[in-house]
Amino acid sequence: MKVYIDYNATTPLNEAVKTAMIDDFAFYGNASSIHTTGRLARARIEDARSKVAALVGAKQREIIFTSGGSESNNTVFQTMRILVERGATEGKPSVRNEIVTTAIEHPCVLNSANFLRELGFTVTFLPVDKYGVIKIDALKAALNDKTLLVSVMAANNEIGTIQDIKEITALAKSAGAFVHTDAVQAVGKIPVNVEEWGVDYLTMSAHKIYGPKGVGALYVRGRSGIAAAPLFPLIHGGHQEDGLRAGTYNNLGVFGFGKAAEIAKQRLAEYKETIFPLREHLREGLVKRMPNITVNGHPTDVIPNTLNVSFPGAEGESILLAMDLAGIDASTGSACASGSLAPSHVIMAMGVESEAAHGSIRFSLGWGITREAIDYIIDTLPPIIERLRSMSTLT
Amino acid sequence: MKVYIDYNATTPLNEAVKTAMIDDFAFYGNASSIHTTGRLARARIEDARSKVAALVGAKQREIIFTSGGSESNNTVFQTMRILVERGATEGKPSVRNEIVTTAIEHPCVLNSANFLRELGFTVTFLPVDKYGVIKIDALKAALNDKTLLVSVMAANNEIGTIQDIKEITALAKSAGAFVHTDAVQAVGKIPVNVEEWGVDYLTMSAHKIYGPKGVGALYVRGRSGIAAAPLFPLIHGGHQEDGLRAGTYNNLGVFGFGKAAEIAKQRLAEYKETIFPLREHLREGLVKRMPNITVNGHPTDVIPNTLNVSFPGAEGESILLAMDLAGIDASTGSACASGSLAPSHVIMAMGVESEAAHGSIRFSLGWGITREAIDYIIDTLPPIIERLRSMSTLT
Repeated sequence: MKVYIDYNATTPLNEAVKTAMIDDFAFYGNASSIHTTGRLARARIEDARSKVAALVGAKQREIIFTSGGSESNNTVFQTMRILVERGATEGKPSVRNEIVTTAIEHPCVLNSANFLRELGFTVTFLPVDKYGVIKIDALKAALNDKTLLVSVMAANNEIGTIQDIKEITALAKSAGAFVHTDAVQAVGKIPVNVEEWGVDYLTMSAHKIYGPKGVGALYVRGRSGIAAAPLFPLIHGGHQEDGLRAGTYNNLGVFGFGKAAEIAKQRLAEYKETIFPLREHLREGLVKRMPNITVNGHPTDVIPNTLNVSFPGAEGESILLAMDLAGIDASTGSACASGSLAPSHVIMAMGVESEAAHGSIRFSLGWGITREAIDYIIDTLPPIIERLRSMSTLT
Repeated sequence: MKVYIDYNATTPLNEAVKTAMIDDFAFYGNASSIHTTGRLARARIEDARSKVAALVGAKQREIIFTSGGSESNNTVFQTMRILVERGATEGKPSVRNEIVTTAIEHPCVLNSANFLRELGFTVTFLPVDKYGVIKIDALKAALNDKTLLVSVMAANNEIGTIQDIKEITALAKSAGAFVHTDAVQAVGKIPVNVEEWGVDYLTMSAHKIYGPKGVGALYVRGRSGIAAAPLFPLIHGGHQEDGLRAGTYNNLGVFGFGKAAEIAKQRLAEYKETIFPLREHLREGLVKRMPNITVNGHPTDVIPNTLNVSFPGAEGESILLAMDLAGIDASTGSACASGSLAPSHVIMAMGVESEAAHGSIRFSLGWGITREAIDYIIDTLPPIIERLRSMSTLT
């Protein structure tokens, strides 16, 4: 049996997205061209923008298309750098040069934050509790009148724990900071509404919601309004996206993203109803068969599709390889961090013992996963773990 | 009749590229995942990389995938910024902080250069002669022991003029500078070989060679060797591309780029043989019917597909709109600069009178253009120009 259960790494294209993309092969114009071929492409780009905006309760103009979640996140951090530099060049020393983020962010946020730290920013990486929830007291302690940006992911990619972005935003705003959330793993899985949360910036990615890879979006609050959050281009060049993101539009990518967003919005309730029982079935089945394993992440405040489990006495990469041979595609954590032998920074931040952290596996479910596939994992994994544990004892 | 003659803005997908992309919908894995689904995607990414490398005579490892030409160009300029900053933070004041580029670059190079100038870099925009060829004497005068980067486009997007990158590189290298060329409009149209030219960085884009939009590449010399050109990420995050470009791979985009590169290499000689006679037919036909027009660009050192013509007494955007009504898609210049009422910076740099510059039209041919389509333009355009000129006289 072949089971793909790594939907947080990426998803296959939804069949309707696939069809829409093939149909749209005909709309190849450069959306910046003023002739008919260009205008036809442009109209489709704007249609996709409205669908992506609708998925997160934003206005169409507040959505900027990017090449993906990593670029969206980098654009926000780069904007903070330029804000400080502009302040400096205008002769007003920047008052705010502190960034608050968390210890469990995706590598693209962590590395963007570290890049700013090297440049002289003060960066606080908030700790999390044993469930991966950021400690609000630590956030309160970190906030002050020098805080420029608070960036907290909406849902964690490895353990699925959901943060209270609304509360975090309120606290950050009361300190006068801008607020960004990397919502790549939340969008399409739980309700996400930029107005309700009150954030200034929100990052999305198409390929986590059954759209194409290589395209994402950044929500920028009130971009046409008087209280607009600032944004500077990471990629300079043409006038695309009002000069905020240069480069010829990725037509097929954007068209596919729009279709994927439309479907994700329509199926949001159905997603939880369908996926969460399967996730619970997997959790219960594994715990029943292997009582000494640990489930990582929050017991209830978790996106419906993610189950992270530690198998003490077995090593994560060995488990993956054995599962791979059995036809099961899962992961030890972020695909963007794979290849590293270090234990997951997310699991470690939760205070899990290093040995258990080394043996943690992320199962992330999605559309297409069946109960039979889950049963196959429940049957296949225990003997694998048992064998790895016995080999580990021998060495 | 419908005629698309704006291939420098973007190209439709080659049918074989289209087919390859549809076939590859099945390979949806995250190429960073270590399981089978990920490895299958990874193998295809690397296959595409070898094809893109082969198109420009590079080694596979020297190619980094990006979201397009604009990102590739920005990455090079951003690297120069970081080189200077690193020098400064290491206590060694940077000796080299001068950039030499040209007055006729694409907006993404011009704006990247201007961004560095705002940060304190000295930037020289080399002048060009009446054919759009950069003045080598001006280059020699600009080069000194503070020159960090020389960035000259291989072929101009608006007028098609080809620069002597080999000679420019030799001069820049003798001054100890790094050399970058934006070869987006040269690749697939004329022979491009990074070894022969000797450049450190070269920018490519898939959608100019009948591949998908939203994907490009940056050649970085000897990346695995001892004399490697430096590169710093514009997008921080995961370890993709050896940490030099973070973000989940754009599978379909990269697969399509690889196929497009393979075809472009195979058909390079055929391209010139097929396209250039049609371009000449258009040039001769227009000049014969309208003796008072001017052809912009070099008479012989020009990419085979590009014809830029000034129609004195008529305004460019009006010509475009009238052609659009007649089913002809052309442009006044770069799609990335469209919407601006300013005359083309390229045409102006050549010393063309402002009025003539305002009335310049770029015809850029490509696979699929027929002699009948060219004849249609030759028949359709003269009455349009005549009408616009007479209206212009009335006002």
